[in-house]
Amino acid sequence: MSKTARRAPAGAAVLREEKTAAIRAAVFAELAAVGFGRMSIEGIARRAGVGKTAVYRRWRSKLHLVLDVVTALAAEGMPVPDTGTLRGDVRMLLEVASRALRHPMAAQIIPDLLAEAARSPEIAEALRTALHDSQESMTRAMVGRAVERGELPEGCDVRLALDLITGPLYWRVVVLRGDLPKGYLDELAAAVATALGARSA
Amino acid sequence: MSKTARRAPAGAAVLREEKTAAIRAAVFAELAAVGFGRMSIEGIARRAGVGKTAVYRRWRSKLHLVLDVVTALAAEGMPVPDTGTLRGDVRMLLEVASRALRHPMAAQIIPDLLAEAARSPEIAEALRTALHDSQESMTRAMVGRAVERGELPEGCDVRLALDLITGPLYWRVVVLRGDLPKGYLDELAAAVATALGARSA
Repeated sequence: MSKTARRAPAGAAVLREEKTAAIRAAVFAELAAVGFGRMSIEGIARRAGVGKTAVYRRWRSKLHLVLDVVTALAAEGMPVPDTGTLRGDVRMLLEVASRALRHPMAAQIIPDLLAEAARSPEIAEALRTALHDSQESMTRAMVGRAVERGELPEGCDVRLALDLITGPLYWRVVVLRGDLPKGYLDELAAAVATALGARSA
Repeated sequence: MSKTARRAPAGAAVLREEKTAAIRAAVFAELAAVGFGRMSIEGIARRAGVGKTAVYRRWRSKLHLVLDVVTALAAEGMPVPDTGTLRGDVRMLLEVASRALRHPMAAQIIPDLLAEAARSPEIAEALRTALHDSQESMTRAMVGRAVERGELPEGCDVRLALDLITGPLYWRVVVLRGDLPKGYLDELAAAVATALGARSA
């Protein structure tokens, strides 16, 4: 995604990295303040203290800019848990995901983009990639290690595992915008490990 | 919600039910077409073939109108499953919920309202009530019966049960906008029953 969304510098132009960083930061601030629908390249440029041309030199449209920024965010800072037990791994993944989802930016931007996705297959596809793919490969690795350890049976359904790990958390944090009571993530991690058929450690 | 959102008829005015029904239908059509943000009372009235006054006589604002309509929709047509086993009950609840979530109206309106909810505590609270409360009481009844039958241990966490039932489905259908592969709901129902500690029937 990032590779195609980002324009190559035109001719001999060199893109100054501090301008790129300022534009990225401005995108988050604008998204949170006015939402995707009302956000404009003008507004982003003004907030970043650059000209509109500086934005268009890097990304061809508002959509490409937002998708690039969101995709980069989803991919970074997600360590692959490897605690030695499935339950421990699930618990750590839940911790990381719950912090990401409770971030004020995520809490405003994800619902905005999902609303746009309901009207645009291009946004829907890009958002699915951003939200799903990094988690999918992490879950696959986690389940694979649990099978190797003999904790999970062969042929455990990775898709179901991913839905069980991510779904309840997303539902409670993003949809209901509810609290995570003390002990909730522990309870959820245990329930998910049991659901997948883990032998108790 | 419905009781307070809907205005009592002013003075001797009698509200014609066919106008009310036409306005409700127009709300769904407008929400799907332009979304909550761009939707106007004028547009709704035009589509319903009534004057703006006919709308304002019934609801005081666009927000009250939408919340009333969505709350009524969430409450209706949800039978309480009572199949004799927890797994059977969960399977039936998943079937009903998946049909509701895959309805084209729901697929457009829910993301829109969640985006608005990120900016308005009033919308967030009303939407939480609409999405959560009817499901919560149904899940409570279902878990209660399973405990009575000895299928589930006493003190089973209803909140966790609700999150495990609704979360994965919501994540796959609404967020990822993905297909439900054949057998998926069976697999999910079995996993949820196992996660909650059900003794196999």
